[in-house]
Amino acid sequence: MEKNEIPYKIYLEEHEMPKQWYNVRADMKKKPAPLLNPVTHKPVTEDELAQVFCRELAKQELDDTTPYIDIPQEIRDFYRMYRPAPLVRAYCLEKKLGTPAHIYYKFEGNNTSGSHKLNSAIAQAYYAKQEGLRGVTTETGAGQWGTALSMACSYFDLDCQVYMVKCSYEQKPFRREVMRTYGAKVTPSPSMTTKVGRQINEEFPGTTGSLGCAISEAVEAATGQEGYRYVLGSVLSQVLLHQSIIGLETKAALDKYGVKADMIIGCAGGGSNVGGLLSPFAGEMLRGEAKYQMIAVEPASCPSMTRGVYAYDYCDTGKVCPLQKMYTLGIGFMPSSSHAGGLRYHGMSAVVSELYEQGLLEARSVEQTAVFEAAQIFARVEGILPAPESSHAIKVAIDEALKCKETGEAKNIVFGLTGTGYFDMYAYQKFNDGVMGDYIPTDEEIAAATAKLPKVAE
Amino acid sequence: MEKNEIPYKIYLEEHEMPKQWYNVRADMKKKPAPLLNPVTHKPVTEDELAQVFCRELAKQELDDTTPYIDIPQEIRDFYRMYRPAPLVRAYCLEKKLGTPAHIYYKFEGNNTSGSHKLNSAIAQAYYAKQEGLRGVTTETGAGQWGTALSMACSYFDLDCQVYMVKCSYEQKPFRREVMRTYGAKVTPSPSMTTKVGRQINEEFPGTTGSLGCAISEAVEAATGQEGYRYVLGSVLSQVLLHQSIIGLETKAALDKYGVKADMIIGCAGGGSNVGGLLSPFAGEMLRGEAKYQMIAVEPASCPSMTRGVYAYDYCDTGKVCPLQKMYTLGIGFMPSSSHAGGLRYHGMSAVVSELYEQGLLEARSVEQTAVFEAAQIFARVEGILPAPESSHAIKVAIDEALKCKETGEAKNIVFGLTGTGYFDMYAYQKFNDGVMGDYIPTDEEIAAATAKLPKVAE
Repeated sequence: MEKNEIPYKIYLEEHEMPKQWYNVRADMKKKPAPLLNPVTHKPVTEDELAQVFCRELAKQELDDTTPYIDIPQEIRDFYRMYRPAPLVRAYCLEKKLGTPAHIYYKFEGNNTSGSHKLNSAIAQAYYAKQEGLRGVTTETGAGQWGTALSMACSYFDLDCQVYMVKCSYEQKPFRREVMRTYGAKVTPSPSMTTKVGRQINEEFPGTTGSLGCAISEAVEAATGQEGYRYVLGSVLSQVLLHQSIIGLETKAALDKYGVKADMIIGCAGGGSNVGGLLSPFAGEMLRGEAKYQMIAVEPASCPSMTRGVYAYDYCDTGKVCPLQKMYTLGIGFMPSSSHAGGLRYHGMSAVVSELYEQGLLEARSVEQTAVFEAAQIFARVEGILPAPESSHAIKVAIDEALKCKETGEAKNIVFGLTGTGYFDMYAYQKFNDGVMGDYIPTDEEIAAATAKLPKVAE
Repeated sequence: MEKNEIPYKIYLEEHEMPKQWYNVRADMKKKPAPLLNPVTHKPVTEDELAQVFCRELAKQELDDTTPYIDIPQEIRDFYRMYRPAPLVRAYCLEKKLGTPAHIYYKFEGNNTSGSHKLNSAIAQAYYAKQEGLRGVTTETGAGQWGTALSMACSYFDLDCQVYMVKCSYEQKPFRREVMRTYGAKVTPSPSMTTKVGRQINEEFPGTTGSLGCAISEAVEAATGQEGYRYVLGSVLSQVLLHQSIIGLETKAALDKYGVKADMIIGCAGGGSNVGGLLSPFAGEMLRGEAKYQMIAVEPASCPSMTRGVYAYDYCDTGKVCPLQKMYTLGIGFMPSSSHAGGLRYHGMSAVVSELYEQGLLEARSVEQTAVFEAAQIFARVEGILPAPESSHAIKVAIDEALKCKETGEAKNIVFGLTGTGYFDMYAYQKFNDGVMGDYIPTDEEIAAATAKLPKVAE
């Protein structure tokens, strides 16, 4: 352990915190494919998007040329309430593994939402407030996003309506109470309060819901109420833009101590974390300034990049959102209910998908029990009980650190620890009781789901 | 908001972190009364204490003359994993209240135990390991202490047996799972695994337990197994010694920015937090170097300082631990089951009691619903959902800040935010549903409980 060299935790000073977000699309020669109107299959316009999203966010969604976008002062003030997030040198984990590798993790869980989701929630709430809206609607799966949005809306005194995937609503009643404490209205999805919810309940009686379905309900609720817009916590390019704060701070912290990352690892569901973490590093690669090994880690039970197809697909079950070209398992794909936590979206951010397609990053899938084993090792030596989502990155970071032990390489391994698992103890209980299952979809299941992709002439 | 003057969060550099604990007893002219053997009523010796506690901890318990005690390097390494805890300038709360006061809080919740308890847990586990013990036993009420000890024992590879007050065990199953994830054995108390547990179950069928009872069970379990000792998370003077890290860091952070506290507020259950936070400031007062207004805040439902008596009492229901002179409601006092969270011990740290008796600090009691109202205000503007315990201090900090608003005084108000409420959502749910009760014991109830104090010739 090299004492007094690199501290256990690198905190940037407040004046060192990023003042702009970074838009990696600006540095991509081949851009992500445009969003398409789900009916006409023509590229959506800002005006079309602005019927669902705030105007400013619609602009950000379509802007693939501006590399840096100023973070408004009010958002920077809010960021200072819970940021900068520390970049932690995992001395204790290194010692436990006996690896020559140097392991760093960017910890985004030191806030009540328990994850990085707050970084985009506050931005989206801010723009909604600026536009004079009354409130916003959204969906939440594992619950981090809904919690984050509740916090952000409470801060700006906006109404917040959350459609929560029913299985999470039932497994995580305490998440619901956190949202309620912040003044949000939480409805289990599919509900009977929307047309699409009633349809899905009728078609699949007893369904425990999906993110795709909750999105459709939230969009319907937004467009059906005056002064409301829909907001989304992942997948969208605007979300990746806001989440670039993760990567920017990580890079600033590494630079401060003259550390060059060899490998950067992030867990991948819809792409909000991995996209935000990797963006600035991908930018350096795109500009030919540096080279990194970048790895996106997804669950074996919902393997959109490692086993999906790269094609236009629906973003939501109700098929009301724009079509997006992405790695996808098909909107009809539902991960097994034995799958714990988030990372259960059928598709992947268009930006992350395109970076993956261009070979800038690798994708790996890992199984649930191995993920919880890694989580437990990490918790015991690093003192943070990680979210199941984040633990996917931990698993691969440990694998890579153990490879270094074999080869004797002192690689600098950086991973994103997106959040804490305090509201995931139901899953940990299964793990502790030894009854956690692994589930890998068959080729037939994936083929059946991807066979129903919309036919789009590219 | 004075930007760029005092940051939102003051983090000490690692080299600025305290290297010694501070023992306030050394600066007290009149010391806390000695612990007495419960049978002979004579002052306990180190050898007697060492039958229950580790030798080094028995020494610390009895040492009222050494002002500074070195923190062993291994403990300092562990501290660096989750410390320094930030001293936060509550800019957003100040703005919300419209107060000229400057509010600061020392946030101890940024670790998986969710509270300050880890500061002493790691010290106690370390000394147990040094002594070559196999394991430790303890009790836990709200669950923070048990979680903290589980984490500490896991780090040093010690067996950890936790007796958890039954009502908490039932209301907080997820706390239990955190402990299990860290490898602890958790038993609801009163249990049938100890003699004292069986007695209490027989005498009070259906009882949901108490801290005093869980302590007795843990002590019995420790003395009945070879290589085990008992450890305790509050009340004891050794715990206050370890917790002085809270106050030392707070003072160092204030000094760094040239801020002089006018008022220091801490929540008080057994005294571990308030004692640790106040110690260095009390030391300055005792040495005639400074003057502070110091306030210990306790629940109206368990008002040991504001309505108890200052006398020798039993520390545990089984009457096996030493007698301690303290502010107490009597070992037979049980707070209403409608009381949420911790701060439910019948007595108060001997050190805090004596400082209170000498007039160095005030005590106030606050009611539960008002505490949760303060918690909600705080959560919404400061982004941290606080523990019910910590919210007692928030309530009084807000009261005092509003007084400043009336008088126009720009006082520096510092309070201890001991932890997060992520495992207290059952209580928040009651609050959100508007069914939270307040309970204040009658004079008769308190008189009945304090009538049964042991007769000790002082």
